[in-house]
Amino acid sequence: MSKVFAQISMSLDGYVAGPNDGPENPLGENGESLHEWIVGLDSWRRAHGLEGGEESAVSPLVDEYISRSGATILGRRMFDLGEPHWGDDPPYHTPVFILTHRKRPQQTKLGGTTYNFITDGVSAALARARDAAGDRDVSVAGGANVIGQFIAAGLLDELDLHIVPILLGGGARLFDGLPAMLNTFEQAEVITSPGVTHVRLSVTPAGAGVRS
Amino acid sequence: MSKVFAQISMSLDGYVAGPNDGPENPLGENGESLHEWIVGLDSWRRAHGLEGGEESAVSPLVDEYISRSGATILGRRMFDLGEPHWGDDPPYHTPVFILTHRKRPQQTKLGGTTYNFITDGVSAALARARDAAGDRDVSVAGGANVIGQFIAAGLLDELDLHIVPILLGGGARLFDGLPAMLNTFEQAEVITSPGVTHVRLSVTPAGAGVRS
Repeated sequence: MSKVFAQISMSLDGYVAGPNDGPENPLGENGESLHEWIVGLDSWRRAHGLEGGEESAVSPLVDEYISRSGATILGRRMFDLGEPHWGDDPPYHTPVFILTHRKRPQQTKLGGTTYNFITDGVSAALARARDAAGDRDVSVAGGANVIGQFIAAGLLDELDLHIVPILLGGGARLFDGLPAMLNTFEQAEVITSPGVTHVRLSVTPAGAGVRS
Repeated sequence: MSKVFAQISMSLDGYVAGPNDGPENPLGENGESLHEWIVGLDSWRRAHGLEGGEESAVSPLVDEYISRSGATILGRRMFDLGEPHWGDDPPYHTPVFILTHRKRPQQTKLGGTTYNFITDGVSAALARARDAAGDRDVSVAGGANVIGQFIAAGLLDELDLHIVPILLGGGARLFDGLPAMLNTFEQAEVITSPGVTHVRLSVTPAGAGVRS
């Protein structure tokens, strides 16, 4: 079966977005500093139709994220803040399933992206995303709260953390509200790129396994 | 001049001790899970007068922490919780300077450890520790709040984070209360040991330099 994965940049103090986010500032104050490492990468730029960029040890990882994703899951808040910036050819290039409480008609964008609004919860969204993804994987793109819901529900198979050596001092914390989990995560691989540590964690639902 | 360094184990959710710490449970609930990686290491066991243990890529790092430390700085709360457990031959083997508000006489323990109570603040404690350390380095051993004070004051030169893939769900957060810092930390080296990622960060006081 295809995997359910999330990959996200996190500050040393655990934030994946800065404080005071809003329509003009969807990543919050200094939130763009979390993503500097990726926007200069050759593989990221190719995927966004841009030339140039630098190759690094992490370039294949970014290529992999793009090629493995057959469907994307987003929270409603991330969608509302991000959508005006993503434009007519959004960066997903897959069906996107948005967790929301309000029904809305499907939207078809350029480049293979569709927006599908799911009102019956995380498991229903995942079932729809798995169907759409086929043999490819499901990317849980965020925000923090949605990734946390997938971890809490035991539905995430893999979490790639890009640990960026900054403090944001406030904002949205990835693991906020989650209880102690001692045997859920296992470090599978570590890659370093200039300035950033990329830790791939396999995720086992609580109780289903013991870390070796 | 000798360096001022801290090295500490941190959970994915940013805690360096679990919730509900106390005299019987100085690391808080599940806090001992942060330190499993080190207590089985050959180098740590040698330093504590124990035989056996495993060698790993991180063994030299632990040897280095022990050999480079010429003085140690502790917070009062960490001292009060830890001291009954450290016994007559504490694991520091250096002069230890404890930040406190209450004067107490110096205590001399076995194995080179002395306890010295400093009531005039972080800078005064550091001056005393530098004097005692000579050519060796000063270790800021904790707790979280004291390491944070050193970072905030621009007095820390190096921070080694041992990132352990667990969630503690509560407790003492290392970076609690610190403001945004975008150019303070620079990733200098990353070592992986089985299950844990060790990130060495050089620390530049805010405004004194720009991350390359």
